[in-house]
Amino acid sequence: MSRRLNLVSKHLGQNLTENFKKSSLVTPYVQDPITFLHLDQLLPAEINSRRAQLRANLETNLAPFVAEWYEKAESPGILAEKFRSLGITGLSDEKYGCKKISLMEKSLILYELARIDCSLATFYVVMFSLTAHTIEELGTEEQKVKYLPKLCNLDMIGCWGLTEPDFGSDASALETTATPVKGGYVLNGVKRWIGNAILSDIMIIFARNITTNHVEGFIVNSKSNGVSVENIQRKLALRIVQNGNIFLKDVFVPANERLGKGHTFATGANEILEHSRMNIAWLAAGLIAGIYENSIKYIRERVQFRAPLASFQLNQEKLVRILAIYQAVFLMGWRVTNLLKQGKANVAQASLVKGWCTLVGREAAKLGRELMGGNGILIDNYVMKALVDMEVIYTYEGTYDICALIAGRAATGVTAFKPGYKA
Amino acid sequence: MSRRLNLVSKHLGQNLTENFKKSSLVTPYVQDPITFLHLDQLLPAEINSRRAQLRANLETNLAPFVAEWYEKAESPGILAEKFRSLGITGLSDEKYGCKKISLMEKSLILYELARIDCSLATFYVVMFSLTAHTIEELGTEEQKVKYLPKLCNLDMIGCWGLTEPDFGSDASALETTATPVKGGYVLNGVKRWIGNAILSDIMIIFARNITTNHVEGFIVNSKSNGVSVENIQRKLALRIVQNGNIFLKDVFVPANERLGKGHTFATGANEILEHSRMNIAWLAAGLIAGIYENSIKYIRERVQFRAPLASFQLNQEKLVRILAIYQAVFLMGWRVTNLLKQGKANVAQASLVKGWCTLVGREAAKLGRELMGGNGILIDNYVMKALVDMEVIYTYEGTYDICALIAGRAATGVTAFKPGYKA
Amino acid sequence: MSRRLNLVSKHLGQNLTENFKKSSLVTPYVQDPITFLHLDQLLPAEINSRRAQLRANLETNLAPFVAEWYEKAESPGILAEKFRSLGITGLSDEKYGCKKISLMEKSLILYELARIDCSLATFYVVMFSLTAHTIEELGTEEQKVKYLPKLCNLDMIGCWGLTEPDFGSDASALETTATPVKGGYVLNGVKRWIGNAILSDIMIIFARNITTNHVEGFIVNSKSNGVSVENIQRKLALRIVQNGNIFLKDVFVPANERLGKGHTFATGANEILEHSRMNIAWLAAGLIAGIYENSIKYIRERVQFRAPLASFQLNQEKLVRILAIYQAVFLMGWRVTNLLKQGKANVAQASLVKGWCTLVGREAAKLGRELMGGNGILIDNYVMKALVDMEVIYTYEGTYDICALIAGRAATGVTAFKPGYKA
Amino acid sequence: MSRRLNLVSKHLGQNLTENFKKSSLVTPYVQDPITFLHLDQLLPAEINSRRAQLRANLETNLAPFVAEWYEKAESPGILAEKFRSLGITGLSDEKYGCKKISLMEKSLILYELARIDCSLATFYVVMFSLTAHTIEELGTEEQKVKYLPKLCNLDMIGCWGLTEPDFGSDASALETTATPVKGGYVLNGVKRWIGNAILSDIMIIFARNITTNHVEGFIVNSKSNGVSVENIQRKLALRIVQNGNIFLKDVFVPANERLGKGHTFATGANEILEHSRMNIAWLAAGLIAGIYENSIKYIRERVQFRAPLASFQLNQEKLVRILAIYQAVFLMGWRVTNLLKQGKANVAQASLVKGWCTLVGREAAKLGRELMGGNGILIDNYVMKALVDMEVIYTYEGTYDICALIAGRAATGVTAFKPGYKA
Ligand SMILES: Cc1cc2nc3c(=O)[nH]c(=O)nc-3n(C[C@H](O)[C@H](O)[C@H](O)COP(=O)(O)OP(=O)(O)OC[C@H]3O[C@@H](n4cnc5c(N)ncnc54)[C@H](O)[C@@H]3O)c2cc1C
Ligand SMILES: Cc1cc2nc3c(=O)[nH]c(=O)nc-3n(C[C@H](O)[C@H](O)[C@H](O)COP(=O)(O)OP(=O)(O)OC[C@H]3O[C@@H](n4cnc5c(N)ncnc54)[C@H](O)[C@@H]3O)c2cc1C
Ligand SMILES: Cc1cc2nc3c(=O)[nH]c(=O)nc-3n(C[C@H](O)[C@H](O)[C@H](O)COP(=O)(O)OP(=O)(O)OC[C@H]3O[C@@H](n4cnc5c(N)ncnc54)[C@H](O)[C@@H]3O)c2cc1C
Ligand SMILES: Cc1cc2nc3c(=O)[nH]c(=O)nc-3n(C[C@H](O)[C@H](O)[C@H](O)COP(=O)(O)OP(=O)(O)OC[C@H]3O[C@@H](n4cnc5c(N)ncnc54)[C@H](O)[C@@H]3O)c2cc1C
Repeated sequence: MSRRLNLVSKHLGQNLTENFKKSSLVTPYVQDPITFLHLDQLLPAEINSRRAQLRANLETNLAPFVAEWYEKAESPGILAEKFRSLGITGLSDEKYGCKKISLMEKSLILYELARIDCSLATFYVVMFSLTAHTIEELGTEEQKVKYLPKLCNLDMIGCWGLTEPDFGSDASALETTATPVKGGYVLNGVKRWIGNAILSDIMIIFARNITTNHVEGFIVNSKSNGVSVENIQRKLALRIVQNGNIFLKDVFVPANERLGKGHTFATGANEILEHSRMNIAWLAAGLIAGIYENSIKYIRERVQFRAPLASFQLNQEKLVRILAIYQAVFLMGWRVTNLLKQGKANVAQASLVKGWCTLVGREAAKLGRELMGGNGILIDNYVMKALVDMEVIYTYEGTYDICALIAGRAATGVTAFKPGYKA
Repeated sequence: MSRRLNLVSKHLGQNLTENFKKSSLVTPYVQDPITFLHLDQLLPAEINSRRAQLRANLETNLAPFVAEWYEKAESPGILAEKFRSLGITGLSDEKYGCKKISLMEKSLILYELARIDCSLATFYVVMFSLTAHTIEELGTEEQKVKYLPKLCNLDMIGCWGLTEPDFGSDASALETTATPVKGGYVLNGVKRWIGNAILSDIMIIFARNITTNHVEGFIVNSKSNGVSVENIQRKLALRIVQNGNIFLKDVFVPANERLGKGHTFATGANEILEHSRMNIAWLAAGLIAGIYENSIKYIRERVQFRAPLASFQLNQEKLVRILAIYQAVFLMGWRVTNLLKQGKANVAQASLVKGWCTLVGREAAKLGRELMGGNGILIDNYVMKALVDMEVIYTYEGTYDICALIAGRAATGVTAFKPGYKA
Repeated sequence: MSRRLNLVSKHLGQNLTENFKKSSLVTPYVQDPITFLHLDQLLPAEINSRRAQLRANLETNLAPFVAEWYEKAESPGILAEKFRSLGITGLSDEKYGCKKISLMEKSLILYELARIDCSLATFYVVMFSLTAHTIEELGTEEQKVKYLPKLCNLDMIGCWGLTEPDFGSDASALETTATPVKGGYVLNGVKRWIGNAILSDIMIIFARNITTNHVEGFIVNSKSNGVSVENIQRKLALRIVQNGNIFLKDVFVPANERLGKGHTFATGANEILEHSRMNIAWLAAGLIAGIYENSIKYIRERVQFRAPLASFQLNQEKLVRILAIYQAVFLMGWRVTNLLKQGKANVAQASLVKGWCTLVGREAAKLGRELMGGNGILIDNYVMKALVDMEVIYTYEGTYDICALIAGRAATGVTAFKPGYKA
Repeated sequence: MSRRLNLVSKHLGQNLTENFKKSSLVTPYVQDPITFLHLDQLLPAEINSRRAQLRANLETNLAPFVAEWYEKAESPGILAEKFRSLGITGLSDEKYGCKKISLMEKSLILYELARIDCSLATFYVVMFSLTAHTIEELGTEEQKVKYLPKLCNLDMIGCWGLTEPDFGSDASALETTATPVKGGYVLNGVKRWIGNAILSDIMIIFARNITTNHVEGFIVNSKSNGVSVENIQRKLALRIVQNGNIFLKDVFVPANERLGKGHTFATGANEILEHSRMNIAWLAAGLIAGIYENSIKYIRERVQFRAPLASFQLNQEKLVRILAIYQAVFLMGWRVTNLLKQGKANVAQASLVKGWCTLVGREAAKLGRELMGGNGILIDNYVMKALVDMEVIYTYEGTYDICALIAGRAATGVTAFKPGYKA
């Protein structure tokens, strides 16, 4: 059996052939979907200009690495460095030596990151929508001083551990325990799916305080005795993110590393989720932007039957559907972000918006994928990567169905989480 | 065979039974979907307060008649009277003795009308988004003075005739002719589907000027010699609207009844469509509001398996999907309306928004319909009526596919209306 | 305001214009969807030939009346007469002076009826899949002799009353009571939605025997004291069917009119539903056949943009999707019918097939409706009528969701009907 | 930054935890979807028994390797060996030392392979539905004798090269040339996406004979001068399959390696595609079987909110939808396979069935994926792999849209491949 590998040409999936260029259409068209309904004009001008800068930086400095990291399912050390240089990290206010990143700006940062790659955006979510945000919202003054500067600088990598092997959607029933002992607590349990776990210096761990029986958060040094991490292998999505199972065996946590506030599930973990769930809608928006841009470029250039793919009705309808979904998702994200800013948001809204944006995001991904035909399955061409990554954001931080049931409870006034089933 | 009809009880589809009341849930819930993301706060306060007034008037004065008119497919004279009393008619500015109704206010009027019944909203569209608006935009000063006051007062009923039996989506190729003669023009041709035709005093008729070969508009007195109207029977949607076929046989139109501007399809009929197509998105929003409100009420009250329908997961997910679609449709309509106000809208945007809002509107209608089970097929219960009426707004003023191809042309830079087919 | 009605031309929705004919394509095409995968060859030849005969009869004798009856929501006496002349009535075997209609033949009869109009098919379902079938399966010998000959001859009209105002999906919990008294039973309660009620001579009434607390069936003479019927008004689907609410007030039923078998819900009403639910899949198949045939005819004849509608990609994809759905639905119906014949079917299968066929049937209806543009909303053009009627068959005899939960119970081994909700 | 990797436990995605086992439901349920409508009984008994054997072999011998190969995107030499031992290779008749594998049996072999992994099934398609089948149908007697025994034995690996970088859907316009020279032909051109290319000993290459201007096939020794292969990297689907770009630079092919029949696109490549396209429907069926089986197992075992996932309505409806889609896809595949056997099939049928089965297959994949929550993204858990692989079979051998247009041409009598667009 012959086995030869001759790299006689550049990657066809990427550069395609000269032929395609010949057909490039010259007429004006919609390249960036944000321009279609002038949605950028709903944003402050300074956000737009920083966004343009960030986009340029990402395209030059990070985009070229993504496909390879994704294929190899790796998250090299260089990643944190690159992030540091982007100047996009901060807190909700200028404090603890960190820059102020407003809620809307953070949203658009996530959007721009996801437009390049959803794993990059997820890294940011884990670091800033979850870890740093938890300390900012629930930490003691001492904890803020100790951790926030380093997290903002990315001198310290954090992760956020809520989910357990047996408790995903039903996280509030989690079983990791925190037993009060002299000088602190002892943690025992297993966490699952925790992003950045293996890269982390600190871990936010939610555990059930066996005295109060409530779920609260602890800051755990990743090097503590009794902590071990196992990386989850063979993910077929978000492959750059390193998700781990964290095993906590009699891990001692000093009393001052217990979060200062949010000593119940509702006032602790759930508050943070409300914030980050809303952020996820912006990941959907960024992914759809990437899908649209890659698709329109492709179907304008690729020729079949002597005509650009863009000239076929079936393809146009698909592209337009992506474009419409984009407008809707952006507007939903924008609206709920504004409400949160005004203090008018609640978890039902964040859940409805997050859930629905990922639902229609899936439709957009599917459409973009098919527009590219065979080339649509290559990591380099974005759309398939977006399709699988959209599956994750459809599922994490509350699956679509859980989000629907949360919103459904608010809409109807009746809860429907539990089934009639009796074991 | 026995045939008895005993009206021994009130209509069960409407009043249902006492039993349902027992289960009424007492917790707070989302009754009006506009409140969920506080979308009303995107509107000027005075629009909201007039809207509340209008809503109350409609519910008291018009809603009770709708089911009967719909069943009988009739549009009684009382309709215009009722409309007059609502005080919702006007022009884009205070002039010609008409009130100013801003673009946004008009949108919300259509929304409130459709929330009660889509035929009512269509009546308003025909009168004000099409007929009066055409005269306002394209008419001569003389025409404005002559017609606008009466139209605003509903002392005169207008209709707007573009479509022909052989030219629907391809309206710009229409074949009704306008032949210049001494003192005016002679019109010949057939129009189809024209709303209000049989009720009308005047008709805007688009015809091909055989000299210029361009399509332009004429104001035709419905009583002119040679004009006859045949009402279209057995429509299974929008049954209150009277759609007619108009036959024009050597109809003389004086020169001063030719519209002063827009002497081509693109600058005439198409300009008007851009405006009214955007209005249709608001009909979708209003219909979805009605669907949501009727559904939530029903599933909270109706009990099966000893629990309110609202307590079943399958029902909650459907309701939440309606609620999410509502938010998206409202925001899309709001955005494009603002753009038009700012002079930044174009026909591609209006088409994308109109097309997509009716696409997802269909999904909402289907969901609401099934939430009500058997009762969901009664005219009185709104949802089935909304479902069939949504089919119309999906189709008229540019079908979904035509809207997609218009937006697709703008998005891709290539036109795809015509097939490769050669006869 | 002018009101003129000049019937100067034939109904445009029906006969369209001469122009369309010009474009008629001459190439071969798929007119009858059953031929595409030669599905007729899965049926016995004699069924196919009787089917052809029936089709011809229906097209000549019944089809021309449908639109008018539908518009008027009436079911004239002539209907039973017409049915009688079709020679399609019978029992599962030749007995009691009735013809044998095999299960497969019955299925195809329903198919052919629905292909013309779903109300006609429903009339047959009520008469033969429900009423006569109940007596055949559960009746005493005396009852069979007394009723079956007349039912088969349509000398007697029957109806089948299970649903109540408060018990639709949860029919097994119904509250109509049967109190044993001397010489028989006394019935009290209300039935809802009962097809043919007002036309009926006899009613099968399911009631809770207050002694056994089980639901069983009774044959009630419609003229009995204490029986009254109220016709349900303003249905926006299945308008030819007369659905009624039946009020039973101290209605005496002689002991010999209690059904001889099936004295629990599971062994009585439910057994009948298994059979008739499977029949409903064939209504879906027939509706989809009608949708396909009307659509293909229309898009081949209608010209826009100088090309037949059939030449546009967007239209072709829709038509092909209808055609594919048709094949799948037919095969599902065929398979489950064969299983039932072989005694291998159960209620889970009938429910899955019924539920899914109506789910995809809805998709087919939507597609056919839009293929016809504006003309697609006229009763005469079939597709809108099919669309609304599909809503009913999606709902009656077990809604899609209830069917899914029945099949889901069998598939998973766990029941999910009841919610966790506690009042 | 800490980097530790402690493999302290078995892979959680696979073995889950003890807890899940506790909840295992004991009631009967539907484990294998083929049993639901007893679809296996539509197959000859001997096919079913060989199928059972094959299933067992695959589960023991191949299944355990799949996840690793998939992750690494490799197709090791051991693969052909394993295949050889399965005893599933052959021709349509016993000849040339090969076993007879009937059309129906081949279909079910593909089904069983895809149930384990779609790359495995694709390997078989490339070898037997394409390469060997082409030689069997179009080869000369000499070619059959020379190649078929070795191909059947897997002593020789073949690949099938039709697609080119610039010609995918429009393959019949391909530009690789075959120039007649003394003693044979000289081939020049580039092929793209060719499965097995880099593993191959021979290649079927379709090229345009510059004399006749028709596309015909040649058997090319993969070691010939001028042949080089470049493996396509970073596919995010069907990762075990090795797809390559083949570069043909002045490759001499002796005259006797030109295929004996099918010297036009329609009579050559297209005939083969009709056959293999029908085979692809069975890949969809196999994938859906795998999706169903993995999902039902998971939702019965996994507990959230103290109840098995299977007990939630939202999950049940999804599972049932997968089950229904399975029945429909199986029946469609079964029907068209029978037609082909009877010589009654044509390319329109194969295309409609292939296209539609992959369309609904996508829906099934999406549903299975979400049923598994986070664990649904691991290669080991099948569903995400099935989801991405379904994208490929939706696209290769004629995309869904191309299949729809092929079927649409037959259904409507008008072709719609080419757009109106003029460059
Ligand atoms: C790539 C990735 C990264 C992640 N990163 C993190 C992280 O950094 N930190 C962290 O704490 N977690 C993380 N998660 C975990 C994530 O939040 C969970 O996967 C998610 O909440 C779903 O839980 P689950 O996977 O256990 O699914 P399950 O809860 O088992 O759900 C399985 C299915 O059942 C449905 N279901 C569950 N309950 C119900 C119900 N009551 N009614 C109806 N349907 C129901 C779900 O909707 C879903 O379809 C990550 C997950 C992934 C995949
Ligand atoms: C209730 C109602 C009220 C109306 N009121 C008015 C009114 O007051 N005044 C007025 O002038 N008109 C009115 N109309 C007409 C309406 O605007 C047209 O029905 C509409 O534009 C569609 O045209 P059509 O019905 O001829 O459909 P067709 O143009 O025949 O379209 C049929 C199908 O083919 C598709 N199609 C058509 N062309 C293409 C193409 N190039 N590519 C792909 N697909 C294509 C369409 O999308 C549609 O699905 C009304 C219509 C209705 C139903
Ligand atoms: C035109 C027509 C003709 C009919 N003819 C007859 C007849 O001849 N004889 C007769 O006996 N009946 C007849 N019926 C009644 C029919 O069988 C019922 O309408 C049907 O069973 C649904 O019941 P419902 O309308 O009460 O809906 P409901 O049971 O109130 O259901 C409303 C919605 O809630 C959902 N739902 C209900 N329970 C659950 C649950 N546990 N979990 C999740 N979702 C749930 C349903 O799926 C549905 O979407 C007819 C109905 C119609 C519309
Ligand atoms: C994993 C894999 C394995 C493969 N294996 C083989 C192999 O072994 N041998 C081989 O010869 N080939 C192989 N192929 C190639 C495969 O057959 C092609 O990818 C497929 O035919 C589609 O062609 P394309 O990728 O060039 O897409 P395009 O033709 O570029 O299509 C792109 C998009 O445009 C649409 N489109 C194209 N034309 C039209 C039109 N006229 N109207 C409307 N829409 C249109 C398509 O539907 C699609 O959505 C393989 C492909 C893949 C991905």
